[in-house]
Amino acid sequence: MPTLLFHSATQDMTGLKRLFDKYAPDVRCAVWPDVDPADVDVVACWHPAPGVLAGLPNLKLISGTAAGVDNILADPTLPPGVPLTRIVDPYLAHGMAEYVIWGVLHFHRRFDAILNGRPRREWNDPGQRPAGRTKVGIMGIGAIGGHVARELVKLGFTVSGWSRGAHEIDGVTMFAGEDGLPGFLAELDICVCLLPLTPQTTRILGTRTFAMMKPGAAIINCGRGPHVDADALLRSVRDGHLRGAILDVFDVEPLPEDSPLWQEPRIVITPHMASTVHASDMVRQIADNVRRVRAGEPLLNLVDRTRGY
Amino acid sequence: MPTLLFHSATQDMTGLKRLFDKYAPDVRCAVWPDVDPADVDVVACWHPAPGVLAGLPNLKLISGTAAGVDNILADPTLPPGVPLTRIVDPYLAHGMAEYVIWGVLHFHRRFDAILNGRPRREWNDPGQRPAGRTKVGIMGIGAIGGHVARELVKLGFTVSGWSRGAHEIDGVTMFAGEDGLPGFLAELDICVCLLPLTPQTTRILGTRTFAMMKPGAAIINCGRGPHVDADALLRSVRDGHLRGAILDVFDVEPLPEDSPLWQEPRIVITPHMASTVHASDMVRQIADNVRRVRAGEPLLNLVDRTRGY
Repeated sequence: MPTLLFHSATQDMTGLKRLFDKYAPDVRCAVWPDVDPADVDVVACWHPAPGVLAGLPNLKLISGTAAGVDNILADPTLPPGVPLTRIVDPYLAHGMAEYVIWGVLHFHRRFDAILNGRPRREWNDPGQRPAGRTKVGIMGIGAIGGHVARELVKLGFTVSGWSRGAHEIDGVTMFAGEDGLPGFLAELDICVCLLPLTPQTTRILGTRTFAMMKPGAAIINCGRGPHVDADALLRSVRDGHLRGAILDVFDVEPLPEDSPLWQEPRIVITPHMASTVHASDMVRQIADNVRRVRAGEPLLNLVDRTRGY
Repeated sequence: MPTLLFHSATQDMTGLKRLFDKYAPDVRCAVWPDVDPADVDVVACWHPAPGVLAGLPNLKLISGTAAGVDNILADPTLPPGVPLTRIVDPYLAHGMAEYVIWGVLHFHRRFDAILNGRPRREWNDPGQRPAGRTKVGIMGIGAIGGHVARELVKLGFTVSGWSRGAHEIDGVTMFAGEDGLPGFLAELDICVCLLPLTPQTTRILGTRTFAMMKPGAAIINCGRGPHVDADALLRSVRDGHLRGAILDVFDVEPLPEDSPLWQEPRIVITPHMASTVHASDMVRQIADNVRRVRAGEPLLNLVDRTRGY
């Protein structure tokens, strides 16, 4: 009997199965390894253990449980011919916008300097300038980055975007590809990374790109940990070139207690909380694609494996 | 010859005179005490020294240099019959909205808990809930409070307002007067004070009103220091009833180094920086009222002294 299998090497997936039992009771579900592999036609997964997906002989669809599928593409045994989908959720974009707005205001209104001056009981009015004089750049202009860019435009910031291919958003200056990167970075006060993690974007924020930025620029990373070269970031902040950073994602999560990032007060550390998928929306999207693949209909939010998103 | 006099007991006003020389060169200006009192028909002031305004025999207009005129009404020798005006500036409202949005997101997304957990290198995902489930109340729905309320509605928060008299703003639930206060406060997750300082609003946030709030509610004060009973606030935060506060204004500014507020990490302290008037807008508004009072035309942004704003 066709079964939707939940599997993750890093997370307990029984909660997700319970949500399906509640919101999509018509879909037969199982949690790895309590399943006959031959029954599984769809797998919903996060950081799958190598070999598990390859051992499912009748697999027709692999569904990610988040916006990013780098955690699935990292499986060296991933079956090559099976379609891969991801979650595209307005709630995810809203949550991300909240986090990024907080971070942009944190630097724009200099709350960073105020909070860091507190141990010395400092009282220094940081002054005020119009939002339009603060230039915010969004790396990665997809469903989430586009929403965040539009919200920042509404608040009056000067917003630009950078992506692999060409995009257009009212009021946002766009840059594309490797050639567009230096011009994009040169103007920014605040650089926000919302990129998908691919071989091309790994360590994109490091010594080379920090040198393209103005002195005093700040970084917000809500993409994935490996987008940032953390050693280079620490050096640049300590040299006084970059002003600071807000990081939500790290190479290893939770961020290990001995990470030197904890020691630098100009780097704000948050526990991969910028945005999470709304559980009932995720269930609805996965269940919809289960129905579609079984009916032979086109799938929604299909990933292009060569692009990585 | 009719002269606009600048005077403050606490601030150097020569910078303001220079702005008038630049933006309103046709207005004859002087800085106290370098003036013949008989020449002065308009005074622009901030915290006037008692007796100075009373000693100007031909005074026709007293102009504040900020949105709040409590600093002028506190002068016991204030000439009773002279019109008093204040600054109403869109830039002031925009700056205030930025500060309050940062503060509301700080509590809504639990950045307070994350930043306070850093010394222990904590990694606790605070979870996420839709903005609409966070209830924000604005005390003081004037030009600034109304703008802030509308910006919070745009971000999806559930917003209510409380003021002396009746107001109406789309999407904002309104409460009015002393009778409306308990109902207003009972529902709030975050209470934002943007009130003018009057005898009625002094220490409005204290033991009595904190008891009307839910456990876990937070305070943001961008009004004036005396709106908050700081000792009661500290007690309530330490008791665990209130979750914390963000304070921009204090009874004495700069906040003295020995203030116990500095010792409570759940209370964020900022240096009266939430919003400042845009200098050229202030000059334009004061110069416009100088022209109006001399031409016998109606004055803009007139203060009702019995209300205090």
